[in-house]
Amino acid sequence: MKTITPPLDGPVCPLPLTHHDQIVLGHGSGGKMTHDLIAKVFRPPLSNPALDAGDDAAVVQVCNVAPNQAPLRLAVSTDSHVVWPLFFAGGDIGRLAVCGTVNDLAMMGAKPLYLTAGFVIEEGLDIAVLQQVVTSMQAAAQEARVQIVAGDTKVVQKGKADKLFINTSGIGSINTDIHINGSNAQPGDIVIVSGTLGDHGIAVLEARGELGFETNIQSDVAPLNHLVEAILSVSHQIHVLRDPTRGGLATSLNEIAAQSQVGILLEENQIPVHPTTAAACEMLGFDPLYVANEGKLIAIVGPDDAQVVLDAMRATLYGAGAAIIGEVGSHHPGRVLLKTAIGGTRIVDVLAGEMLPRIC
Amino acid sequence: MKTITPPLDGPVCPLPLTHHDQIVLGHGSGGKMTHDLIAKVFRPPLSNPALDAGDDAAVVQVCNVAPNQAPLRLAVSTDSHVVWPLFFAGGDIGRLAVCGTVNDLAMMGAKPLYLTAGFVIEEGLDIAVLQQVVTSMQAAAQEARVQIVAGDTKVVQKGKADKLFINTSGIGSINTDIHINGSNAQPGDIVIVSGTLGDHGIAVLEARGELGFETNIQSDVAPLNHLVEAILSVSHQIHVLRDPTRGGLATSLNEIAAQSQVGILLEENQIPVHPTTAAACEMLGFDPLYVANEGKLIAIVGPDDAQVVLDAMRATLYGAGAAIIGEVGSHHPGRVLLKTAIGGTRIVDVLAGEMLPRIC
Repeated sequence: MKTITPPLDGPVCPLPLTHHDQIVLGHGSGGKMTHDLIAKVFRPPLSNPALDAGDDAAVVQVCNVAPNQAPLRLAVSTDSHVVWPLFFAGGDIGRLAVCGTVNDLAMMGAKPLYLTAGFVIEEGLDIAVLQQVVTSMQAAAQEARVQIVAGDTKVVQKGKADKLFINTSGIGSINTDIHINGSNAQPGDIVIVSGTLGDHGIAVLEARGELGFETNIQSDVAPLNHLVEAILSVSHQIHVLRDPTRGGLATSLNEIAAQSQVGILLEENQIPVHPTTAAACEMLGFDPLYVANEGKLIAIVGPDDAQVVLDAMRATLYGAGAAIIGEVGSHHPGRVLLKTAIGGTRIVDVLAGEMLPRIC
Repeated sequence: MKTITPPLDGPVCPLPLTHHDQIVLGHGSGGKMTHDLIAKVFRPPLSNPALDAGDDAAVVQVCNVAPNQAPLRLAVSTDSHVVWPLFFAGGDIGRLAVCGTVNDLAMMGAKPLYLTAGFVIEEGLDIAVLQQVVTSMQAAAQEARVQIVAGDTKVVQKGKADKLFINTSGIGSINTDIHINGSNAQPGDIVIVSGTLGDHGIAVLEARGELGFETNIQSDVAPLNHLVEAILSVSHQIHVLRDPTRGGLATSLNEIAAQSQVGILLEENQIPVHPTTAAACEMLGFDPLYVANEGKLIAIVGPDDAQVVLDAMRATLYGAGAAIIGEVGSHHPGRVLLKTAIGGTRIVDVLAGEMLPRIC
């Protein structure tokens, strides 16, 4: 297992961010090194309230030109996709690119409306591959009921990119009574996950031929906006939503614990992991809590609504495997703890370095 | 000179888009091959009215949740930037990324509000370089008075990208009485350009050491939204705005001629080109009408307002060199013609292949 269990106050790894330092793969992990890069390089010059909130999407207001009209609340998000290989069991870079941005918007309680798509293509890519990816994007957009309204294509010389990178950005509208964000978790809240963890990461590893054995695991890549709609229609106590992509469940929950300044206690027994994914992780020395998902969400919900939200999730296509996995407390603010199957408790930290590069 | 002068109805180049074909650099030129790739690969599956309009940014509507409120009109745009090298006289990839998207929004008459930034970084990039680029982005955003509200960072292995690619996407609001787009050019309209052409392309070539001599040419990369505000404040007869980036003035005017089904007649004598840029183009065999700009716009304006718009442009920082360069007619719909300095007339076609790869 690669889980890092440092002393409570110790640094996970000293981060060298001086002028002589270089970007390493860990800076793209979505874990601690990414957070440090953001904190030290991106945030200081760019700082503004929407960016600093550090959620899956920024919430901004656009004033209407007509007088006496309330400003419109929009969620805005961007994601560049560099997954390798382009195709894997259950999905491809096109479906991933659409779902990634749709999900980031949905995690703010927004209704995703419009996407943009920016392609960076390596010279020599088969046009048939590009056609297949674009068709997959359209199918995913149709499933999510969003429109891709603007695009851009750049081509770089052979050897200057890796076949195809796709950026998707998106906007969605947020109802005035919805205030879901990473700072809203409250002691007593219940932590629900919408299904099994780690399947996307293992499916991509298998597509790379790095597993050394065959599995039947498929990536979970899916648009989650209809699932979010379903739970918003049954509860006004949805405090936080997040999709645990790079860095996995562990990293997302740590982000929420830090943003809300609460502790989160998980029950290892209750965390759903597909047996094949669990076996693959065991053999590779990975902890499924850190493996990327692309069609799962974490919901942190007021305790009175936990059951109704769970039931609503389970009635949807992508929430059938939903489970309550823990609760929010006031002890150890900023920390995630795991009550293990054998009765101990250990700290679950943010992903430290890089486990699986280019997983999304 | 590389200007292509095909017979009026002949194909510029036969485009092989079968399943056995591969992406070549020309598909990213912004010219004919890019248009064909869009028409054959991107548009068929993704088709929707906002995308099909083919303007610099899509115009979409977002309905307000409150009853009786008019829907909000937004411009939405995306651009991936792969310019090489990252730094050049007058700018860098960061300033380019911000200005590129700000300008695409402004060309719809929108007020640019919010940008997103997606970074694809090659392992090994100096963090100091990244800091310099991000600082430059912030300076450009501040100048344009927009906020960068969401970001994403991906890292790929050494050799799988070329140092740094940046996608910026953006949204802006459009007043209800503004309807500027590429289909609005009308016979009798006047064509104005905001300053000298081709400076960005030549500055980037010089930074690559490909000129073989030193010039004092600086890239014109600049945010044009304040210039657009200035002309919108003096005229309601702005029919089309476009920034002639990849493919240059010639390609942008051909797009407009095709969208509006009008002919455009240019006066070669009146087209402003910096003498050094002209000399560099002469030596390299380039036509400045095809060389990229990143801080210039074309305005197509009702004839009664041409002078007041020209004067308003000239009073701004980035429009000081503005000039009237031609007019719109009903002859040769879809074509751009040039009355040459020696009195002849020639067709100015869309850029056919690739002239300067990775110029933006």
